[in-house]
Amino acid sequence: MKLIRYGNTGEERTGVQIDGVNYDTSSYGKDYDEKFFENGGLAELAAYVAKHRSELTVIPDGTRLGSPVARPSKIVCIGLNYADHAKETNAPLPTEPIIFMKSTTSLVGPNDDIIIPKNSVKTDWEVELAVVIGKKASYIEEADASDYIAGYVLHNDVSEREFQLERNGTWDKGKGCDTFAPMGPFLATPDEIADVDNLRLWLTVNGQKMQDGTTANFIFKVPYLIAYVSQFMTLLPGDVISTGTPAGVGLGFKPPVYLKPGDVVELGIDGLGTSKQNVVAWSKA
Amino acid sequence: MKLIRYGNTGEERTGVQIDGVNYDTSSYGKDYDEKFFENGGLAELAAYVAKHRSELTVIPDGTRLGSPVARPSKIVCIGLNYADHAKETNAPLPTEPIIFMKSTTSLVGPNDDIIIPKNSVKTDWEVELAVVIGKKASYIEEADASDYIAGYVLHNDVSEREFQLERNGTWDKGKGCDTFAPMGPFLATPDEIADVDNLRLWLTVNGQKMQDGTTANFIFKVPYLIAYVSQFMTLLPGDVISTGTPAGVGLGFKPPVYLKPGDVVELGIDGLGTSKQNVVAWSKA
Repeated sequence: MKLIRYGNTGEERTGVQIDGVNYDTSSYGKDYDEKFFENGGLAELAAYVAKHRSELTVIPDGTRLGSPVARPSKIVCIGLNYADHAKETNAPLPTEPIIFMKSTTSLVGPNDDIIIPKNSVKTDWEVELAVVIGKKASYIEEADASDYIAGYVLHNDVSEREFQLERNGTWDKGKGCDTFAPMGPFLATPDEIADVDNLRLWLTVNGQKMQDGTTANFIFKVPYLIAYVSQFMTLLPGDVISTGTPAGVGLGFKPPVYLKPGDVVELGIDGLGTSKQNVVAWSKA
Repeated sequence: MKLIRYGNTGEERTGVQIDGVNYDTSSYGKDYDEKFFENGGLAELAAYVAKHRSELTVIPDGTRLGSPVARPSKIVCIGLNYADHAKETNAPLPTEPIIFMKSTTSLVGPNDDIIIPKNSVKTDWEVELAVVIGKKASYIEEADASDYIAGYVLHNDVSEREFQLERNGTWDKGKGCDTFAPMGPFLATPDEIADVDNLRLWLTVNGQKMQDGTTANFIFKVPYLIAYVSQFMTLLPGDVISTGTPAGVGLGFKPPVYLKPGDVVELGIDGLGTSKQNVVAWSKA
């Protein structure tokens, strides 16, 4: 199953994508949030869609998509989880996962604008595979981790490198700016993904290929990451773990290359669709 | 006004404290959450309490208190905001505020147990003044910051030093464990606090004074911190900013001293009451 949310920001309605077509399921009546995942919403929604398949309305092309998951309790990110990316940023290979957090106010739809923060000169991109948690996870074992996965989603972990690295710790300062977490187009349940450890992921800026990697190069794989994070904090249904980015970020170029107003970022992961963000300057609302 | 929440974990009801007595206000019907603060809840609650003052029921002594604010979108913490604490941890004085985040799943009531995480050997204490945000704040000016404050609350920023400092970045890894954010007893609105820059704050372990500081020693004061954080992420109503801890944490002792099962932690801030946590070992639920 592929879950989507659509409509105006803050007023999103729910839907599903079937054979590339988006259908409204808002008559089902539950948003894709903590309660939904906690209370068996995925199975309930699947049954609802099976029963009402012929009555579902098509969502017109061009309708704005929101993040396919409603605002979670937290977005946990893993740093430097691809060897090539660690190398390009002159960082040593992590001996265990690096954890940081994105403010959930950074969450936006997959094709929303990326706003360059006021006073930012180093806004950068990071294509990532994100995992959505399906049930409460605390001190779980790696062998059990797959029971805790609701699905996977494409995520651009937008990062301001000066805020992150040069403005006094921690990384969180450059990771949680508004619009810094375009997520979607859809949440794919695990059955939709044949092998999560063998997905190509890529990102272009103005059509030029910047990142072109594969999850086969993960240093730490998804089940390990979920079990690991759950040793330090309880993961709630709907929470997001973003698994790190491969080489090719702006910081890794010599000299570095950063986003500027007018740029267009496109990204994708095998089986998880693509997203596209226009980059705009911050302006007083 | 002093706001409290009481009852079993996850089923908290609301109340107010008047002249040291806790009264139930759950008939008012709104929890102290993002929507409450966003929609003028503080003024509405004050009017409700004034109108129904004589009918309010007293909450029996010994009733469990919850965090006086419902789970916020984020808990942002400021690192090393007292010069004496920076010195004891061998850290240079910050030239601008250090920001990190606590997982909101760490939030508990003021007198709930502190659970030492599995495999933890360096669980530490930090008495802190926390600020609760009253309205959405993005790129605000320091001069306007007081308009964005819903109130103040006592917070123990419990920290696992090995997770925080020795297990591969960032600090977040040692800050967001379950029960690591005892908050309360009450949220005091700003009119209850004569001078937020002149509050004594203290913490004892088993009756022995460990921390005894004053907010007069802030490196960065509250209005500056709110304005500063709002440059990097939007603060939502109900969000918490914890403003750092003075000297006297376990990490600062030579040799360091950490919490162990059976320890009792007590802390307080002038005008914000006191809290008391029993320290217990983690056990499989």
